[in-house]
Order: sequence, then structure tokens, then C-alpha cells
Amino acid sequence: MLADLRIVAPEDCAVANARNEIDAKTKPQGSLGRIEALAQQIAAAQNSMKPFADPATLLLFAGDHGMVAEGVSAWPSAVTAQMVLNFLAGGAAANVFARSNGVSVVVADAGVASDLPPDPNLRRAGIARGTANALHGDAMTAAEVEAALRFGADLALRSATTGTRTILLGEMGIGNTASAALLAHAVDGIDLVALTGPGAGLDAAGVKRKAKILAKIAARRPGRLSPLDALAAFGGLEIAAMTGALIAGASARAIVLVDGFIATAAALCALRARPDARPYVVFAHRSKEPGHRLMLEALQAEPLIDLDLRLGEGTGALLAFPLLRAACAMLGQMATFSSAGISGKD
Amino acid sequence: MLADLRIVAPEDCAVANARNEIDAKTKPQGSLGRIEALAQQIAAAQNSMKPFADPATLLLFAGDHGMVAEGVSAWPSAVTAQMVLNFLAGGAAANVFARSNGVSVVVADAGVASDLPPDPNLRRAGIARGTANALHGDAMTAAEVEAALRFGADLALRSATTGTRTILLGEMGIGNTASAALLAHAVDGIDLVALTGPGAGLDAAGVKRKAKILAKIAARRPGRLSPLDALAAFGGLEIAAMTGALIAGASARAIVLVDGFIATAAALCALRARPDARPYVVFAHRSKEPGHRLMLEALQAEPLIDLDLRLGEGTGALLAFPLLRAACAMLGQMATFSSAGISGKD
Repeated sequence: MLADLRIVAPEDCAVANARNEIDAKTKPQGSLGRIEALAQQIAAAQNSMKPFADPATLLLFAGDHGMVAEGVSAWPSAVTAQMVLNFLAGGAAANVFARSNGVSVVVADAGVASDLPPDPNLRRAGIARGTANALHGDAMTAAEVEAALRFGADLALRSATTGTRTILLGEMGIGNTASAALLAHAVDGIDLVALTGPGAGLDAAGVKRKAKILAKIAARRPGRLSPLDALAAFGGLEIAAMTGALIAGASARAIVLVDGFIATAAALCALRARPDARPYVVFAHRSKEPGHRLMLEALQAEPLIDLDLRLGEGTGALLAFPLLRAACAMLGQMATFSSAGISGKD
Repeated sequence: MLADLRIVAPEDCAVANARNEIDAKTKPQGSLGRIEALAQQIAAAQNSMKPFADPATLLLFAGDHGMVAEGVSAWPSAVTAQMVLNFLAGGAAANVFARSNGVSVVVADAGVASDLPPDPNLRRAGIARGTANALHGDAMTAAEVEAALRFGADLALRSATTGTRTILLGEMGIGNTASAALLAHAVDGIDLVALTGPGAGLDAAGVKRKAKILAKIAARRPGRLSPLDALAAFGGLEIAAMTGALIAGASARAIVLVDGFIATAAALCALRARPDARPYVVFAHRSKEPGHRLMLEALQAEPLIDLDLRLGEGTGALLAFPLLRAACAMLGQMATFSSAGISGKD
């Protein structure tokens, strides 16, 4: 799955054409800063000088983590399913921001442990009810990893096929900052202690305890691992689903807007396996979870906003999304110096 | 004008109530970072636990500067009027971002030097056709300053009366980074050389030349000046209009969203005269114009976004505006732990 999807490289001339178009707009050259770079990236991804960020869809993947039994989170696993119901009822932060910013939400059960009642709006992977406890063995089998990748990829492809131009990646899963830290450590060799943070609300003592547990879990599968092996070793189902969704989104020439710490761990797995997906990826925000900065640096990614967010659910991606819409509008709609009859510099 | 408008202090209990409401929402406490602080501020300003950022209106003030004759800008003064026509035709960056983010635009001629044809959509101050050259005498008379303040205040009050809850402040005026630098220097004592930057596109030699000219102009009115005296000494008409609009907006309990370097100079004048307006003011972005950081520090303001923008026109405020909308939606629409039946921390 990580290898078989074809990703088209944006043409160099599309980037140059967008640069020329932007430089003809009625503003000092470069004066819209990173909005200009964003417009160039989206124009090249879509191979169009009138790119569109809309329609946009948040793929919101939920999954549980067996290692929560070891005490890596301040919250019980049951909250994952409760939050899925909250997403389906439209009451979570992700729903509110999605409505506020005109983004659709697809709620996906990539592997929730607790029972969820039937709901036509819930996409179900049906792979496993949470991962196994990674302290005692691999969190997932290779087949489960593959199935979770495909689940995410299928949702991304279905969205793109029905017109989505921007796919936002978000997640919910009690314990998943632990998995994300282990993945970034195993795949990229980032220091595990530096990657270990409070997640959804551990205090300082809790973070210390979490670091000890993660060190034990990492010791079970030491050294650098491939993205696939790391996902199998440490989970989770929702992270693998985001990994698949990113690669598939890029293969469909959709822009993939990556949320915070956990979504970035998925992006790290995806981009180490498929660096050719990078031109389609935008990093939305810098999370307050301290290790996020390290992952972003490893990816040479400069996120768009930095608002001390640490919620997940795609909330950072949802808050950054209007910048993509504005960047496209700038390129597609602004007047040029010649069309508006405006003088140049002295 | 700066003294006679009554500004209501938000009640302390509104801030506390908003804090309690936000802490009951289905998310770890504090996990939405600065969005939570923003929601609190707007709730307190509106004295409502269901605040709204919409409707929002950009007041876009244009004005010319006599000191452009001394070579402080890379662009000719004629561009100010040309850009006003571009605003009226809907082709400028401000128009495009306003449409993209659902904000209305009011184009106001606070004192453009060149002829502008009649247009029912253009508000005209009719005070002066640009400021006098501040190198040789005051840029404005005290009466002109007062009239420009009132012009801005009237537009803000009219907007608020017709329902606007967020007033965005933006400007266009060739040479106005020079005025803005002189104002921040005179009103707050910030180092003038540090405040002098490329504006709309001077090269390094141009910035040096600009710094020399600004030093000469500042020497004509040395020492600390009151906001009113500084506006008279250095202009400009559009900056005084924004100053008046900010104070009047606060008096109408509207949120005032301040754009970049020049709008922040207006905010500095307004807030030094009327510190009681501060609870109604939000700083949108950190401009690439190097002195902007110093002004923001002097105001103890932490802007929402930082995207290397240096265009003006309210573009930074327009790009940040959806964050205000999302913050209001968070407070007004998110479920609580009890309403959604979600477990607490372990």
C-alpha cells in the first residue's frame, strides 16, 4: 500500500508560472509572505493558475491503544468512544471549527475498543478493537497495519473522487501521543525523552512515568525501524489510517493538511516511505506538545500557525484551513498591475 | 474626540464566567491555547457567553503623505489613488481576502492627494488632499487631526450601529511606514532607526536614506509627544482616522482587529490616549516590517499569526479574522462534558 500508489510530481514550470502570476498582482512582490508560497504550492499540486482549496474534508480517525493499560495517559480509554459519539453529534471542537470554516467532517472508527452503536455517518474499519499492549508484543500485525493503511487510503480516495481538494488529517485516541512519540523515535531516531510530553494532560510526575514506560516499550524493538515495522510495533490503527490517507491523498493530487503531534507522526511515517508525497502536504500548526517541534524540524516543515493548541481532532488543521482558501483566492482573483492600471515602483 | 467617548470596562465576572464555560467543554482544559483566551476576551467585550465575531467590517482608510517628496518610499504617491480604485473595483488583496473570509469592506478616502472620480461606495473625509511635508512643518493642523479622528470614529460607530461586531483596521498610503515609525518614536520613545524598514520595498540603500530623512523630520519636533501632537507633526490622515475608529469601536463594544505596522502605530496612539480601549483590541499579525515587533512589545501585544506579511490594507487582519469566528463558535457551540456524557480524567 505504501509503495503501490502512483504520485505525480508537480511540474517545475507550474511553480514558476505561479511565481510569475503572483508577482504581477497589485502588491509589492513578496509582500504576502507565506501566503504566496502556499499559493504556489497549491497551484503546482493542482497544475492550475486558478487553484481551489475547497471543497475540504476532515478525515477524523479514532483508535484505541493497548498500552494505555500501562498508564501513559491521564484519561481512560473509554473516552475515545465517547468522543466519537460527540463527533457524530456535532458537539466537539472539531465539529464546531469545521462548521465555522466550511469544512466537511468524516468520522472514522479505525479501531476503537469500546462498543459504538450503529450510525450511518460512522465509517468503520473493522480491523481490531484497539491495538495490543505494545509493552508485551507488537501493537499490530503486519496485516492489521496494511488494512489500516488501506482503510485510510480508501477514505481519502473516496473524498478526492467526490471532489475534495483539501484533505485535513485529524485523530482521537486516548494514549496516542505515546504511540506517536515511539514512532518518531523509531522511524527518525529523535530522542524519545524529548518526544515525551503531557499529551492530553499529564502533570510533571505523569510525564516522567510516561517516559519510563515508553523507554521500556521502545527497548522491546530497539534501533531504527521502517515506517511499516514501527507502526506494527507501536500502533496505532488511527495513525496508520492517517498514513495511508496522506499517501492516497497525494496520489489523487489533493492537498493534505496535517494537524498536530499525532498526525505529524503519521506524516513522518508516510513521507519517509513516500517522499514523493511531500509537494502535496501542508503542515497546519505547531502544537504545544513539546516534541512536535522536533518532528517538524526533522521534516523541515514550517507550520502556518502557532497558537499553543494541544487538542488534536484536526483542530489545528481546521483553524489553518482558511489560509489555504485565501491563498488560492489571491492567485485566482487578484488584479494585476496592468489590469488595474497601477504604476510601478519609482 | 480622544477623550469624550465613553468606554465601558468589561466586567471581571464575564471573564471568569467565560473561563468556567470553556473549562466545561469536551476537551482537556487549556488545550485550545490562545483560542480560549480569545474567546474569553470577546465574551467579556460583548458580555455574552454566546459571543459572535460576525458581522465583520474592514475599514480601509487611504491617505497621502507630503514627506513622500523627500524620497521615503519606493513608490509614487499616485499609487495611493490607483489602489483606492482597485479597492473599489474589488481586485486588491484586501478585497479577495475579505470575500474569502466573509468580511465586508468600507473604502474610505481619509486624505488622498490625487483626484478620485465620484463613487457611491467611497467614503470621503474631505479634510485635506494628503498631509503637508512634515520635514518643513507640521503634517496636519490640530483641526485636521481632530477631523480625521472624527471621520474614523464616525465610520466605526456607523458600522457598529448597523450590527458590525468586529471592526478590522486597514490602510493604504504611499509613505505611511515613515509616518508610522515617526509616531511610534515620538509617542513611545522607540528607537527611530530600529523602526525604519523597507516598507513597500526599499532596498538596503533606500532604507538608509529613509532613516536619514526620518531623523531630520523627527529633529523638527524632538522629544516625546502626545498622540495628538505626534499625529499633527508627522501625519497621516489615514492613521488618525484609524486612531479614531479604534476608540469609537471600543466605545461601541465592538472588537477592533488591528492589522500591521501602520495600523499598530494608530493603535499605539489610540491606546496611549485611551488605555481603557485595550480590552476591545486584538492584534492580528506580526508584520515582516522589522519595527513592528518593537511596537507590539511596547503594547505587550502577542499577535495571532506571523506569516511574513508586509502588505497592509488590512490583509493580516483579514487572514486572522476566522480565528475570532472560531473562538466564538467554540464558546457558543461546543458540548460540555456533562451534556455529552464524557468521562473525566483518571
